[in-house]
Amino acid sequence: MSTRPTDEGLALSVEVVVFGVDDSDLKLLARRREGEPFAGRWALPGGLVGGDEALEGAARRVLAEAGGVSPAYLEQLYTFGAIDRDPRRRTVSVAYYGLVRLADPRAPASAPEGGAAWFVASAAPRLALDHDEIAATARRRLQAKVRYEPIGFELLPRKFTLSQLQALYEVILERALDKRNFRKKILAMDLLADSGKVEADVARRPARLYRFDERRYRRLCKQGFNFEV
Amino acid sequence: MSTRPTDEGLALSVEVVVFGVDDSDLKLLARRREGEPFAGRWALPGGLVGGDEALEGAARRVLAEAGGVSPAYLEQLYTFGAIDRDPRRRTVSVAYYGLVRLADPRAPASAPEGGAAWFVASAAPRLALDHDEIAATARRRLQAKVRYEPIGFELLPRKFTLSQLQALYEVILERALDKRNFRKKILAMDLLADSGKVEADVARRPARLYRFDERRYRRLCKQGFNFEV
Repeated sequence: MSTRPTDEGLALSVEVVVFGVDDSDLKLLARRREGEPFAGRWALPGGLVGGDEALEGAARRVLAEAGGVSPAYLEQLYTFGAIDRDPRRRTVSVAYYGLVRLADPRAPASAPEGGAAWFVASAAPRLALDHDEIAATARRRLQAKVRYEPIGFELLPRKFTLSQLQALYEVILERALDKRNFRKKILAMDLLADSGKVEADVARRPARLYRFDERRYRRLCKQGFNFEV
Repeated sequence: MSTRPTDEGLALSVEVVVFGVDDSDLKLLARRREGEPFAGRWALPGGLVGGDEALEGAARRVLAEAGGVSPAYLEQLYTFGAIDRDPRRRTVSVAYYGLVRLADPRAPASAPEGGAAWFVASAAPRLALDHDEIAATARRRLQAKVRYEPIGFELLPRKFTLSQLQALYEVILERALDKRNFRKKILAMDLLADSGKVEADVARRPARLYRFDERRYRRLCKQGFNFEV
């Protein structure tokens, strides 16, 4: 049992794990640390929480500082509080994770400013402090969550094909999915509304365009429906 | 954007939502606040985190102080950091939630010491500060989680009947379940091992006793299996 009160030397920070999705990879945003300890090493975007700043506000601020990244989806992940996680002083970190769509991953313009860069999540460099553990926790949470909550749709255009949806899931889950099973599961949930339109400007037979029926999803949830991919 | 650093007046606390399960109700542990503000009002067990104390350690300590409650299941819930959640000073609370089995809910001995008491969760008194919000978040999380992770088994005897399992789920979910559907779903997952034994000392036809096959569950999870009730 401890008698040392929290306000002697305890600091509170946020760290944010941002996953970027492009056509082929799940990517992770990291930035080079400027200060000691671990100056020059890659780390998650993060920083101390201001005394009059909300936690999610602090998470969005550190992302704005890391090249202006603004995730379509942002959620609190977990609070990491191991006593020795920072060598300077006891720092408890409230971690968030978010998702952004990377418009064109090959264009250099997609690399954010502020010493930040995107890495393929499965091949990212070692991160400073306990940030590898934070990133691994976020990756597990993301991959579990997309299977039972429809958070992937926020990364698609409003109207999309089933192939685009499957490709998105394959990138997030980092593995191939069986096309027939995937379509069967998705269509059986009856959450996709046929837009009545098909793809434009494709050489092959154009595929049907769907949209996610959010209102129907909310209604079904109240009746005990479980999303599952 | 804030410039006030965290260590000017920011405090870190833990609050713990403990759910007690008996034969008929989901119960919530609350204790009377001794100090101001809200002295005498019911609140969740909680307190400041010691400077050299792990977060879960602090959660277990405040439960030990609230009558020696020791949950079979304890997990971090969410970190509540609204700027004005405590009128005294900025206090960020790392909330945990846990589950305990109440041996005999009618016996006065099951009421813990230290000004704490069990309330039926759906009829608990208003709690101080933002503790109603924390408790509601925990109840939603628990009820979602028991459906896709086998955390309920930790509250049963090692060998149990299907009726005992269903009763436990009904208490946690706070609603009746269809017996046939429940048995079908549970048995289809093939996670219960037949113990080869039946109930002893019952007047009616004794029911078969099962045990949860944890090793098999771990193995199936690695193959992408999803628990679902």
